Amino acid sequence: MPESPITPRSQDFAAWYQDVVLQGDMAEPAEVVKGCMVIKANGYAIWELIQRQLDDRFKATGHQNVYFPLLIPQSFLHKEAEHVEGFSPELAVVTIAGGKELEEPYVIRPTSETIIGHFFSKWIQSYRDLPVLLNQWANIIRWELRTRLFLRTTEFLWQEGHTAHSTHEEAMAEVLRMLDVYAQVAEDEMAMPVIKGAKTQSEKFAGAVRTYAIEAMMQNGLALQSGTSHDLGQNFGRAFDVKFQSKEGQLEYVWQTSWGVSTRLIGGLIMSHSDDKGLVLPPRLAPVKSVLVPIYRKDDEKARVLEAAERIARDIGAKVDDREGQSPGAKFFHWERRGVPIVLELGPRDLASNNVVLKRRDTGVKETVPQADLAARIPDTLDRMQKDLYNAAKQRLKDNTVLANSIGEVEAILRDVTAEKGGGKFVMAHMKDDPACDARIKEFKATVRCIPLVDEFDGAGKCILTGEPVDRRVVIAKAY
Amino acid sequence: MPESPITPRSQDFAAWYQDVVLQGDMAEPAEVVKGCMVIKANGYAIWELIQRQLDDRFKATGHQNVYFPLLIPQSFLHKEAEHVEGFSPELAVVTIAGGKELEEPYVIRPTSETIIGHFFSKWIQSYRDLPVLLNQWANIIRWELRTRLFLRTTEFLWQEGHTAHSTHEEAMAEVLRMLDVYAQVAEDEMAMPVIKGAKTQSEKFAGAVRTYAIEAMMQNGLALQSGTSHDLGQNFGRAFDVKFQSKEGQLEYVWQTSWGVSTRLIGGLIMSHSDDKGLVLPPRLAPVKSVLVPIYRKDDEKARVLEAAERIARDIGAKVDDREGQSPGAKFFHWERRGVPIVLELGPRDLASNNVVLKRRDTGVKETVPQADLAARIPDTLDRMQKDLYNAAKQRLKDNTVLANSIGEVEAILRDVTAEKGGGKFVMAHMKDDPACDARIKEFKATVRCIPLVDEFDGAGKCILTGEPVDRRVVIAKAY
Repeated sequence: MPESPITPRSQDFAAWYQDVVLQGDMAEPAEVVKGCMVIKANGYAIWELIQRQLDDRFKATGHQNVYFPLLIPQSFLHKEAEHVEGFSPELAVVTIAGGKELEEPYVIRPTSETIIGHFFSKWIQSYRDLPVLLNQWANIIRWELRTRLFLRTTEFLWQEGHTAHSTHEEAMAEVLRMLDVYAQVAEDEMAMPVIKGAKTQSEKFAGAVRTYAIEAMMQNGLALQSGTSHDLGQNFGRAFDVKFQSKEGQLEYVWQTSWGVSTRLIGGLIMSHSDDKGLVLPPRLAPVKSVLVPIYRKDDEKARVLEAAERIARDIGAKVDDREGQSPGAKFFHWERRGVPIVLELGPRDLASNNVVLKRRDTGVKETVPQADLAARIPDTLDRMQKDLYNAAKQRLKDNTVLANSIGEVEAILRDVTAEKGGGKFVMAHMKDDPACDARIKEFKATVRCIPLVDEFDGAGKCILTGEPVDRRVVIAKAY
Repeated sequence: MPESPITPRSQDFAAWYQDVVLQGDMAEPAEVVKGCMVIKANGYAIWELIQRQLDDRFKATGHQNVYFPLLIPQSFLHKEAEHVEGFSPELAVVTIAGGKELEEPYVIRPTSETIIGHFFSKWIQSYRDLPVLLNQWANIIRWELRTRLFLRTTEFLWQEGHTAHSTHEEAMAEVLRMLDVYAQVAEDEMAMPVIKGAKTQSEKFAGAVRTYAIEAMMQNGLALQSGTSHDLGQNFGRAFDVKFQSKEGQLEYVWQTSWGVSTRLIGGLIMSHSDDKGLVLPPRLAPVKSVLVPIYRKDDEKARVLEAAERIARDIGAKVDDREGQSPGAKFFHWERRGVPIVLELGPRDLASNNVVLKRRDTGVKETVPQADLAARIPDTLDRMQKDLYNAAKQRLKDNTVLANSIGEVEAILRDVTAEKGGGKFVMAHMKDDPACDARIKEFKATVRCIPLVDEFDGAGKCILTGEPVDRRVVIAKAY
C-alpha cells in the first residue's frame, strides 16, 4: 500500500489515530463486513506479544486454557435476566445451518458466561471440584453501531477468564488478583499507567454483582476502559443451577468470576505513545526492536557496508533492511511509521570510524555509538525508552487529573472535550454510586469511570449531587 | 469428573477412542451446540504445543500472522463456482444482527479464500507487492452431519495460510514447502509418519487446481488426512479480480495457494499412540513431561518424602503430585490416563537407597534409577520414547501397506474394514486419476487417499480399472 501523510495529532486526534493505525500496518476497516477490521501483520504481532505476557501470568496464577463453542443456544441468554437485557441488542444470530432453518437459533458468543455456566453445572458437584480456574482465547461478536479500529469493532479478539469458587471471599480474591495482572501488563509491558477501581452499578457488566476495571488516559485526555474483572456473585450459579456440596454437606451455588481484555488494548497502546510520525511502541511490545539501514552510494561501498551491516546486526539481533530499490530515507520513514524503537544507520564513514548512528524512535535523538559498545547500548536504550514512555504517560495522567467540588465545575471542565479536539481530564469528585448520579453526568456525555480502589486524594466528602456522605472521590471523564 | 473404564481398543476402536478422549481430559461433546466440542485443559495444552511448532516454522519460512473477519458476505462464496458448490451445504448463516434482519446475510467462514481474495485485490497492484505470505489462526464452522471429537466437529480450530505469487512455479514451490512443514511436524513432533501425495481430482479442495495432503495411518489401519496444501492456480485471482502489473508491464492474475491443519491433528495423535490405559503422548507434545508421586504411610515418613520429592522435582523440572486424600494408586491412574510420559515414584525405601522408580508410559516398564542420574536419564528416556513411538507407528504403517493388482483384490482387502473393528490397510494399486475410478472405489466405502509424491514401489503400470498406463501406484484405504 502506498504511504500517505498522517494528520497532525493536535489538528484532529481521531483522524490522527486512524492514520497511525493504517500507516503502521496495524489494521484496516473490513468495510464489506459491518464494523469489522482486518488485523494486519504489525498489529497481530503486537497482539501476540501482549497475549504471551498475559498468558504466562494466567498460567502462573493457576489457570488452564480451554475452548468453548462459538455458538450459544439463544435460550441460554434468557436464563439470566440482566445478562439478556444487556446483550440482546448486540447479538448476531444464526438462523440457518446446513441448508436448513434451525429450530432454535444460535447466537454468536458476545461473551461466554452462559455456555460456560451450562458446563460448570455438569462438572461441579462437590467442594473438591473447586476452584475451577479457566481461560479461553477467542473471538467475540457484538453488533456495535459506531465502530473504531481496535477500540470498538463488531468482531474482536480477547481472552475471557471464568472461575468458580466455594466462597465469595475466595472469588473476590480472584477478581482482584486478575485486575492486578491486567494492571501489571498495562503498566510494565504497555508502559500505560492505569487506575484500578470499581465501576458504578449503572456501568457494571450485565449480570455481575460488581465490575472492577483498569482505566487509562489517552493522549487526548479521554479515558479508555482497558480491562474488566467481574464479581458475578451467585447470579450465573443460580441461572445455570451450578451447585456443589460443601465440606459441611450443604448444597450451595458456586461463586463465579469472569475477566477479560481484548484487542482494544492495542488501541490504548497506540493512543498512549504514538506521535505525528506514526506508531511509537514500548520496546517490550515491539515485534522488531531494532533495524539497521545500510547507506552507500557506489557499488564498491555497497559490498563493504552490507557485509559489516550483517555482521553487526547478527551480534545484536537486529534486522538489516537490505531491500533494493528503496532509498535510505524511504527505509527510515518505513520503520518510523511501524514504531521500531531503534533504527541504526551504517555508512562508509561510520565503517571507517567503527561507529554506528543510533536513533531512538520516541525522542528522535541520534547518537554516534562505537560498534563495540552496541551490544550493551541497545538493551540499555530499550530499557530507558520503556521507562521514559511510562513516565511520560504517568506525568500526563497526573497533569490532567483535576479536582472538582461541584457539578458545575465538573461540567465546565468536561463539556467541550471531544475525541477529535482532545483536552480531556480525569475529574475527581465526590459522588454517590447511584444511577441518578450517573445519569446526570451523562447529560454532558461524560461517565463515571470508576471508584478508585486506592484513594490518592482527600478521603471522604459529600456527594456533589445528593449531598450524601461518600468515602472517596470518583473518576469522571469522557471516554471511548 | 469421576473416572470410568476405557473400552478395550481391540473390542471397539471407536468406543475406545471416545473413552481415551474423555478420560484424558482432552475434550467432551458440547451436545447443546450441534456437533461441537469443548476442548478441555489437557487437549488445549497439546494444541498450544502443536501451534508453537507450526507457528515457528511458518515464521521461519517468511509468513506473517494476520486476522480476517469471521463473517463473510454470502455473495462472496458465489464468485467461485466450484467453491460455492463445495461449501454451500455446510454453511452456518447469520440473518439477524443488532436486532434487525440483515439485507445481505453473512456466512460464518468455512475457510477464508473468498474474504482474503477480496483484500488481496485491494492490496496487490504490482509484482513489487508479491509474494504475499500470510497465515491466520482461527475458528471455522462447517455444518457436518456425522461428527467425532477432534476428527470432525462442526466448529474446529485451525490455521489457514494464504499466499499470492507472480508465477505458478513460485506458487507450486510454496505449496510443496508447506506440505513439507506439515510432514515435519507430524513426523518429528507428533511421531506420526505420513505419506505426502496429491489428491485425485474428485477429492481436491473446492476451488483448487490441485490439492496435496499428508495421510497418516491410525492404529485401526484407517487413513487420516492430516493436513492439506492447495495449488489454487488463478481461480480465486480471477474470481476476485486480483491482478498485478508484471515486471514486463503486463496485467496478470496472481497465483495463489492455501494450506491448513486443524485440531483434527489431536485426533490423529491420540489414534496413533494411545492404548487401553488411556492417552499416550509423544514427549515433545506432552504438556507435563514427568510427575513425581511421593509414597508414604506414616506422618514422620511424609515430611521426609515430600521434602526430598520437592528437591528432586525442582532439579529435573518435574511436577510433584502432593494432593491430599488421593492414594498413590489413584495418582498413577490419573497421570496414566492423561498421557504423562514419565511417572516417578519416591517412597521411604527409595529415599534410603538414594533411588527413584521411573516408569515409562508407553512400555509400562519400571526401572530403579539413582537420584544422581535422573537429570541425565529423564531427557534420554523422553528422547528414546519419542523415537520408539515413531518407529512403532512407522512399522505399523509398513506392515499394513499391501499391494493389489486388481479391483477384486482391493475390494477383498478393504470390504470388511470398519472404524470400530479395524483391520484397515493402505492398498497400493495402479489407478487413473479419473472421477469414474474414484466412484468405483467408493462403492465399498473406501477412497483414493493420494497419489504419493515419491514412489516407493514398482513404478508405472496399468490402471486396474481402465487398463490405461499410469506412472505409479496410488493409496486406497478406508478413512476418517
